[in-house]
Amino acid sequence: MTDKDLPFSQAEYDRRLSKTRAAMAAAGIDLLFVTDPSNQAWLTAYDGWSFYVHQGVLVPMEGEPIWWGRKMDMFGGRRTCWMADEYIVGYGDHFVQSTERHPMQDLAARIREMGFGSARIGVEMENYYYSAKAHAVLTAELPKAVFTDATALVNWQRLVKSDEEIAFVRKAARISEKIIETSIARAAPGLRKNDLVADIFHAAITGVDDIWGDYPAIVPLTPSGLDATAAHLTWNGAPMREGEATFFEISGCYRRYHAPLCRTVFLGTPPQEMLDAEKAQLEGIAAGLEAARAGNRTCDIANAFIGAL
Amino acid sequence: MTDKDLPFSQAEYDRRLSKTRAAMAAAGIDLLFVTDPSNQAWLTAYDGWSFYVHQGVLVPMEGEPIWWGRKMDMFGGRRTCWMADEYIVGYGDHFVQSTERHPMQDLAARIREMGFGSARIGVEMENYYYSAKAHAVLTAELPKAVFTDATALVNWQRLVKSDEEIAFVRKAARISEKIIETSIARAAPGLRKNDLVADIFHAAITGVDDIWGDYPAIVPLTPSGLDATAAHLTWNGAPMREGEATFFEISGCYRRYHAPLCRTVFLGTPPQEMLDAEKAQLEGIAAGLEAARAGNRTCDIANAFIGAL
Repeated sequence: MTDKDLPFSQAEYDRRLSKTRAAMAAAGIDLLFVTDPSNQAWLTAYDGWSFYVHQGVLVPMEGEPIWWGRKMDMFGGRRTCWMADEYIVGYGDHFVQSTERHPMQDLAARIREMGFGSARIGVEMENYYYSAKAHAVLTAELPKAVFTDATALVNWQRLVKSDEEIAFVRKAARISEKIIETSIARAAPGLRKNDLVADIFHAAITGVDDIWGDYPAIVPLTPSGLDATAAHLTWNGAPMREGEATFFEISGCYRRYHAPLCRTVFLGTPPQEMLDAEKAQLEGIAAGLEAARAGNRTCDIANAFIGAL
Repeated sequence: MTDKDLPFSQAEYDRRLSKTRAAMAAAGIDLLFVTDPSNQAWLTAYDGWSFYVHQGVLVPMEGEPIWWGRKMDMFGGRRTCWMADEYIVGYGDHFVQSTERHPMQDLAARIREMGFGSARIGVEMENYYYSAKAHAVLTAELPKAVFTDATALVNWQRLVKSDEEIAFVRKAARISEKIIETSIARAAPGLRKNDLVADIFHAAITGVDDIWGDYPAIVPLTPSGLDATAAHLTWNGAPMREGEATFFEISGCYRRYHAPLCRTVFLGTPPQEMLDAEKAQLEGIAAGLEAARAGNRTCDIANAFIGAL
């Protein structure tokens, strides 16, 4: 493959791998198995809608990481990962949703072949897609290995963003701004909520200029009225109403990088208590932003925000 | 709450619960813990974008099922589940992403209080969102319980659709048709793929007449050219090109019910081998449809399709 379109430089991937290996060494891990799709993408650039089957990245202390998944998805791995094709491996479809076989049997065999059958293996115990069954099979197949919970080990390495990553987040933020502008411009009494959400999706995926929109990890959350007292409800076909507030929780996404943004839209004249709440909220945000500086902890920001409230 | 907008009749939910309990009895399960979001919705009508935290449905052999999740999401549970408010329970935010506590400790305490501390408990071992850690904590907290793998137990009950459900699938199919019509009408050399996908999302969420579009469980998969040889790649901002085929894998969704549909669009005059492949494919589909009748198994359909190829 000569026409790969990697999001980041090789130096950036090398940096990520070095950071991860330092954390592995500190945790006493010889081989890390990464299932979190975001962590997989961060380490290898893998980008496919294939996380509904077992897949992951094996990170030994030396050499290239290995992307492992369903054989069908190896082609996507070869098109998106920075590693050479031989580091993209897969299991056959007879393992998929079988009641007799499990993909972790294939992974265990590979781990043994790599010489890690008795190694200290880190797994993300608390992560979607590393199921209870996956862990049960993998540990049974590798009885001599010592398993360590490596939940969030890679996530912590991702915390401080590189300049290349910040450029991506800024692009995502441009899309988020466009989504919120679209939401405010379109919201009106009588408009069906799903028609508003259709415009939100359209703005999010169209993006801004050459900043094309990727799918965000969250659908637009846009509850109105009483529904807005409930977190995480999605939309329906009911019309927006005069005298009702709608809470927008959205994010633009550029090549898997997000910049989430929340806004409340009130159709009509808001009651005084809502205006008072807005004022307090704005003061809190200002205080929080003031505290958001290098050296402070996130609790300092939270305390500044809550203190102002 | 008097303004619930339940998708189905109470008779339908009663039917589902009865079927599930018959399967539990056959499997020797006293208490079922359901984590699959689709299974939760099927049993209780719960519909929230909250599956990134631990949540689930407890099904005892008698009485109402219990929806359990993050306290913040109880409000969404009360707005969407058919059960009375007292059957919606939640754990505090000090359990969320804690390194000291785990939500399964809260669940285990509830199970003990319900008198199921020594019961035979069914869990979906192979399901997203029932993590290796969740299982480790739950089993450690309930040492006297006997755990059974109930993976797909509820899914099998969902297989034969009721008339109420078929009406939903037909509505979803109307949306799928609209999406494919939009895709074919819009696809053209020079059009950026993300702009096409923006129109697809818009069509999917706008829906058809009063059939408003819900978010599908799959994003539009629309790979072109070489990318179409790789399953499950999503879009980018590159323009569509003359002489290239694009594979559309999409689904409309109406209130969590889907009707997936695939089509290939070729821009320009397809080469003869592609036309030959189309002809064979159409013959295979016709043979498969012929075999798709009550009494036949899915393998009969697959064999009819492959036989024609």
